[in-house]
Amino acid sequence: MADLRGLRWDGTALHFIEQTLLPEKLETVQTQDWRVLVDAIKRLAIRGAPAIGVAGAFASLLAWREVERDRAKWLEILDVIEEARPTAVNLSYAVRMMRDAADGISDDSLDALLASKAKALAKRDEEMCEEMAAHGLDLIPEGSTALTHCNTGALVTYGIGTALGVLRRGHDAGRLKRVYACEARPLGQGSRLTIWELDQAGIPGTLLSDSAAGRLMQEGLVDFVILGADRIAANGDTANKVGTFNLAVLANRFGIPFYVAAPSTTFDPETASGDDIVVEMRAAEEVRRCRDRLVTIPHAEVYNPAFDITPGELVTAFVSEAGVHRPPYSFA
Amino acid sequence: MADLRGLRWDGTALHFIEQTLLPEKLETVQTQDWRVLVDAIKRLAIRGAPAIGVAGAFASLLAWREVERDRAKWLEILDVIEEARPTAVNLSYAVRMMRDAADGISDDSLDALLASKAKALAKRDEEMCEEMAAHGLDLIPEGSTALTHCNTGALVTYGIGTALGVLRRGHDAGRLKRVYACEARPLGQGSRLTIWELDQAGIPGTLLSDSAAGRLMQEGLVDFVILGADRIAANGDTANKVGTFNLAVLANRFGIPFYVAAPSTTFDPETASGDDIVVEMRAAEEVRRCRDRLVTIPHAEVYNPAFDITPGELVTAFVSEAGVHRPPYSFA
Repeated sequence: MADLRGLRWDGTALHFIEQTLLPEKLETVQTQDWRVLVDAIKRLAIRGAPAIGVAGAFASLLAWREVERDRAKWLEILDVIEEARPTAVNLSYAVRMMRDAADGISDDSLDALLASKAKALAKRDEEMCEEMAAHGLDLIPEGSTALTHCNTGALVTYGIGTALGVLRRGHDAGRLKRVYACEARPLGQGSRLTIWELDQAGIPGTLLSDSAAGRLMQEGLVDFVILGADRIAANGDTANKVGTFNLAVLANRFGIPFYVAAPSTTFDPETASGDDIVVEMRAAEEVRRCRDRLVTIPHAEVYNPAFDITPGELVTAFVSEAGVHRPPYSFA
Repeated sequence: MADLRGLRWDGTALHFIEQTLLPEKLETVQTQDWRVLVDAIKRLAIRGAPAIGVAGAFASLLAWREVERDRAKWLEILDVIEEARPTAVNLSYAVRMMRDAADGISDDSLDALLASKAKALAKRDEEMCEEMAAHGLDLIPEGSTALTHCNTGALVTYGIGTALGVLRRGHDAGRLKRVYACEARPLGQGSRLTIWELDQAGIPGTLLSDSAAGRLMQEGLVDFVILGADRIAANGDTANKVGTFNLAVLANRFGIPFYVAAPSTTFDPETASGDDIVVEMRAAEEVRRCRDRLVTIPHAEVYNPAFDITPGELVTAFVSEAGVHRPPYSFA
C-alpha cells in the first residue's frame, strides 16, 4: 500500500490529515486558503515541527496567490502565519525563508520562486526521512521487535517520519516483526496516532500502558527501543516526550539498544548539555482528563512536564540523515 | 478529621464505600444482605485483598442470620460467597475460617461465635495497618515528599491501609510534606482513588502520568518511594501493580530509597523467587479505553499485564506489622 502522508502538495492546494479526528476518523482537508492552514496549526490538526514548517511555507505561497501582488498585505499575512505557533522554530524558519526569498524579486517571477522554495523544503524533509530510514536499517536485527514512544511518523513530517519512518522501512525490508507502542499519557500520541499509523501501514503493532514497558522488557519482548527527539544537546543529552528517560533507564538495565532518530535540524550545538534545556510544564487538565473524560478529582494538583531529559550516556546511537552516530557524542 | 474507612461494621450491618462511583461520588452502602456484599465484591465496589476477606467474613455472618438455623442452606451460601472472587486468597481464607468455626458448635452459640470471628479478623487487619504505619514512620525523613503507585489505603483494608497508611501517619506526625501519586494506567487507581483519599485526608497530593515519574526524580522531587505488594517471594522479589518495577529501577538510578509495605499475609515463603510468580494478563479493553472512553483504534492489539516483578535487590526495605526488614531477604 502507498505510504501514508500527513501533508501533500498537488501544485495548487495543500492536503492535510485533520489529526484532531484521529483515530476515529481519517479526514483529509484540501485547501488553497492560508487561513485554513494557520487555523490547523493552531488547533494541532497539523503538528510536529517539520510538518508545521512545510505547512507554513505553503501557506506563505497561497497567501501570495491571494493578495494580487500587494506586497505589503502579503508581508502582514506572513506575520500572522509565523505567529500561529510562536515557539515552533521550524515555522518561523520557513516563513523567514519565504520572506527573504521575495526580496528584490519581480512580481512576475515571485510565484514560481515561492513555489519552488516551498516544494524544495518539503522535498528535503521527505528525503531526510528516507535517508534516516536507510541508515537506521542497519540497526534493525532480522526478525526483531521494537519499542517506541509518542508519535514520530508521517503525521509529523512531509515524509515517512523519523523513528517511525525507520521502523516502516525496517518492516518493508522484512526485518521488523512487530512494534510495541507506549500510550504516551497524558495526550496519548502513542495510542491515538502511532497505533493508527502502524495499522494503516499494515505493520503489526501492540499498544501498552506506559507503566507496562518495564514488564515488557522483563519478558524479553523488546529487541531495541527507537524514538524521536525534540532537541539534542551537543553532548547527546536528549529532550523528548516525557517517559523517554524512563525507557532509556529500563533499556540500560536490560542491555537493550536505545536509539534516537532525528534530522540534523534537531541537533543543537548551541546547547551544551541537558542542563541548559528548559522543560516546558503543561496544563493540569491534560493529566486530569483522558480524551476529555475526567479521571480524577476536578481540583487535583498535577505535575505535568512535556519532556524529560535522557542523558547521552544512555543513548546507544543517534540516527540522522547524515548517518549513525555512536558515542562519545560531540555534536557541533 | 476522622480517618476514612472503606468498610465499617456497626454490629448489625456492614457499611462499605461504593468504589465504582469514586472519585465523582462518595456513597456509603449499608447492608444486612450477604447478596449485596457478594455483588459488591464481584463488581469491584469492594476491592483489595484484606478488604475482600473482611467483607466475606461479615457476609458469612449475615447469611447465618438469614437462614433460620438451616445449616445446609448456610453452607451453600458460603460457597457462593467464596466464589465471588475465585482468585482472592483472603476471601477463601475468611470463608473457610467461618465454616470451620461452626463445626461442632450449637446453633444457640453460633451467631455470637461467627460475629466474634468476623470482628476479630477486621480488628486484626486494622491493627496490622497501624503497626505497619508505626514501623514505617522511622523511614520517613522530616519534611520529605514520597512517590507512590496504585491504591493502598483505607479502601483496600479494614484499617488505614498499607503504604498509604504509612504515609497517612507520616503526615499526621508532621514529617511528610507531600505525596506524588502515579496515575496507574490502565485502571487509574492512582488518579481515581489515591488522589481522592489524599484529598479526603487533607494530605497534599500531586497526580502525575506514569510516564512522568522519571522526570520527577530527575528534578529531585522524590525523597522516597513507598508502595504495596500483591505477593512477596521468599527472596524479596515482589509482584505488584504494573509500573512498580519501572519506579524501582528509576529510584535505584538516583539512589532514592524504595520501600514496600505489606502485612505478613502477603509474604509467601512457598514462592522461592519472582520466577515462580505467574503474572496475570488482563483484558485488552482496559488499555483501549480510559474510564470507558476509547483512546485508540477499536481493534488495537494490546499488551496488558496486571503486575510486574520487582527484584528484591531493588527494595531498600520491607515494612510489615512485624517491623522493618532489610536485605538480605530470606522470608520463611
